[in-house]
Amino acid sequence: MSQCDVALIGLAVMGQNLVLNMADNGYSVGVYNRTHAVTEQFLAGPAQGASVSGFESLAELVNGLSKPRKIVLLVKAGGAVDAVIKELMPLVDPGDLIIDLGNSHFPDTQRRWEAMQESGVHFIGSGVSGGEEGARTGPSIMPGGDAAAWPMIKDIFQSISAKVDGEPCCDWVGSGAAGHYVKMVHNGIEYGDMQLICEAYQLLDEGLGLSADELHQVFSDWNNTELDSYLIEITGHILGYRDEDGEPLVTKIMDKAGQKGTGKWTGISALDLGMPVSLIGESVFARCLSALKQERTVASKALSGPNPQISVEDRNAFINDVKEALFASKIISYTQGYMLLREASNEYGWELNFGAIAMMWRGGCIIRSQFLTDIKKAFDKNPELSNLLLDDYFKDAIDRCQGAWRRVISKAVEVGIPTPCFSTALAFYDGYRRERLPANLLQAQRDYFGAHTYERVDRPAGEFFHTNWTGTGGDISSQTYNV
Amino acid sequence: MSQCDVALIGLAVMGQNLVLNMADNGYSVGVYNRTHAVTEQFLAGPAQGASVSGFESLAELVNGLSKPRKIVLLVKAGGAVDAVIKELMPLVDPGDLIIDLGNSHFPDTQRRWEAMQESGVHFIGSGVSGGEEGARTGPSIMPGGDAAAWPMIKDIFQSISAKVDGEPCCDWVGSGAAGHYVKMVHNGIEYGDMQLICEAYQLLDEGLGLSADELHQVFSDWNNTELDSYLIEITGHILGYRDEDGEPLVTKIMDKAGQKGTGKWTGISALDLGMPVSLIGESVFARCLSALKQERTVASKALSGPNPQISVEDRNAFINDVKEALFASKIISYTQGYMLLREASNEYGWELNFGAIAMMWRGGCIIRSQFLTDIKKAFDKNPELSNLLLDDYFKDAIDRCQGAWRRVISKAVEVGIPTPCFSTALAFYDGYRRERLPANLLQAQRDYFGAHTYERVDRPAGEFFHTNWTGTGGDISSQTYNV
Repeated sequence: MSQCDVALIGLAVMGQNLVLNMADNGYSVGVYNRTHAVTEQFLAGPAQGASVSGFESLAELVNGLSKPRKIVLLVKAGGAVDAVIKELMPLVDPGDLIIDLGNSHFPDTQRRWEAMQESGVHFIGSGVSGGEEGARTGPSIMPGGDAAAWPMIKDIFQSISAKVDGEPCCDWVGSGAAGHYVKMVHNGIEYGDMQLICEAYQLLDEGLGLSADELHQVFSDWNNTELDSYLIEITGHILGYRDEDGEPLVTKIMDKAGQKGTGKWTGISALDLGMPVSLIGESVFARCLSALKQERTVASKALSGPNPQISVEDRNAFINDVKEALFASKIISYTQGYMLLREASNEYGWELNFGAIAMMWRGGCIIRSQFLTDIKKAFDKNPELSNLLLDDYFKDAIDRCQGAWRRVISKAVEVGIPTPCFSTALAFYDGYRRERLPANLLQAQRDYFGAHTYERVDRPAGEFFHTNWTGTGGDISSQTYNV
Repeated sequence: MSQCDVALIGLAVMGQNLVLNMADNGYSVGVYNRTHAVTEQFLAGPAQGASVSGFESLAELVNGLSKPRKIVLLVKAGGAVDAVIKELMPLVDPGDLIIDLGNSHFPDTQRRWEAMQESGVHFIGSGVSGGEEGARTGPSIMPGGDAAAWPMIKDIFQSISAKVDGEPCCDWVGSGAAGHYVKMVHNGIEYGDMQLICEAYQLLDEGLGLSADELHQVFSDWNNTELDSYLIEITGHILGYRDEDGEPLVTKIMDKAGQKGTGKWTGISALDLGMPVSLIGESVFARCLSALKQERTVASKALSGPNPQISVEDRNAFINDVKEALFASKIISYTQGYMLLREASNEYGWELNFGAIAMMWRGGCIIRSQFLTDIKKAFDKNPELSNLLLDDYFKDAIDRCQGAWRRVISKAVEVGIPTPCFSTALAFYDGYRRERLPANLLQAQRDYFGAHTYERVDRPAGEFFHTNWTGTGGDISSQTYNV
């Protein structure tokens, strides 16, 4: 019996589809699942005729691989990953490679990567996006960890990944937990994109009163503009989908969204690193608020607000305004996401390649879009680009859209339709382009009540001043408590 | 030599002032500081003539206390607290009480509280707010941990705390880390209050072009309205304070604010518990953005926006609108803060007393205000109040202010002055009062690309559906990966 090229552990739908994808690309795959019946069903069903071999134990799986071994884990994030790695370690040899392709939280990946340094066994933590369909037909893959092991898996990963203009949506991300971090930020951006679309939908649906057919048409049309993207495309499909009774199915769906994963982690990382990634933050909070359905139902009967109907002279002009508000907000979201990546790269020493990240995201994954090709171009033009907003393409786009952006938010505020992400995006833009923010007053307050000291605009940075504001508080500036 | 009533370890300014406060209230205090010279300076200086005894070692300090011993730590949060506790444990006896009065992060307090359960030594983690001045004259104190130990320290803490209408701003908060958690949320709310004031300031300063004297007058006047609070009061003072050259000092202060502590922790806890505490989140991000001063300076030369000058027919009417926008936003911030407290209380089993928390905050601390007396009243009227917005006082206040709130945000959006916290507050209000949010579309998207399933409005909760949206994706709904 010939040895398999690569192994995959964990045969849920994502795992099965990745196996079939690898087999399609000419690789022989050894598979293992804790419940062996799943393996048997897979071999007798979807994998029939493919170069896939099933194994009943991890030892048999490891023995069935060509060396150096390449073992992909697609098991539930958390303890299960540690458990499988622990079982594998006595079975594998130095020079073999273990790849965690699950949704692991980046600090876990960093810990595992560090723990395996001594063993001589390579470790890669890789994000993968594209859902079940992407896994089968070509996902976006974001590997990081042991750079020395990248050549071992490069051909397999790049062959199964999505391609855009012939380029694979998979490249080396960086060391340590870089792969899972970039995937996490991808998901945070996905949260933002989805909430932005929801805000546009509510403005057009509840506000402007578009029919189901009109809504379907608007999003389908938008997919032929600079908004061209997978999420806009499926939104068009969804809005056109009729339930068995002929009604739009979307209107029957409960408006309670889950959030417990990567969007939240992105927000927490942003807070930890001190980066103002407010749009992802608001999109997570919007999901939290949606989940409070019972409370909202009670509140809807008690709390007042304006009539949500938007009356405008030119409906089509307003629809176009909403499109431009969505586009401008999206630019801000990616700007903030890249600011976070830049800070994380500095903080953790990962040396992320920003253009390559855009390339990995522009196909295969949930946020794939024309837009990411434009981001790639911006980094090609200027690899040292410090902020997306400073690239001419995005700067011009904001200039073109900002009138509409302001009109839409003003209208939403007036009629009482919530647009937390449109609004925070604009507030960020108006803050970022300001040399002077009112934090001078805030620093004065902190010095007043806590003697925290402040810097002055007319003195060199790093020189700190305290004012005895009341004449009674004392001239001693604050110290950290010190035993 | 008689035994001291209580000990305090850590003689930075906060610690010194708390010692003097206890001595003023008739307690004899034993003090210890790692660097003994600090103790000597304190005894020869501020503590001269007070019933304060200095000790050169922790063993001597412990021996100098009446039993059961009460030992207050005011040392730097983190490892220093653990180190001092470790040194103290062999010296104290079961039944003694160690109180951490520093700025500890609540998970540390929870861990310490759990670790000491077996020892028989009591542990209390207590927040304290009021800055150096409050520590001296009456802070807000928020103790939690071993309820059995509360009577040991109740008289001392309530005597040194602030009083409002004769009631002490100190009461038992709850078990475990409840005290430090409540203090953390206090600080988060403080971040929000400060940012809201900054947004009002920028609108009146940059937008309306008020003079320094006018700004001083406006905030001084506001302190005689429902905004009556310590932070509004000191803002009035700050805006009236002139530098040596006669210019307003605030205009010379660098607009870069620090954030690394409790505001960030509050945001992270909100994300972890899934509560939409968006205003505190935005206030932390506003500080992050302010810190990017160099980037903003570069961007200010490249990015365009409207003329920030606000032209209105009636300046005083607009000033009043800003006041009402600030008040309405503040109601939302406290609403969100209380939602977080409620969720934390449920999650951690602390059985928080919400009315008592308002009482503790209404004096002594940085967010002290008339407003908190109104919150206390709301919980007195209805101890089971599920949400502040459903209380008549706050509901009426929002109704009265919401026209102005919407006008101010619209104007800010139009002229390009960032008001992230005003805006997120309104978006929250408009979302919270809505039975239907657009998360139905979001759930459809998640089911489309990830087979995440959804509930339906016309079917019972807990029943989940998957749609084969494209006719090609398969009918299998998503599973968690499972080895």
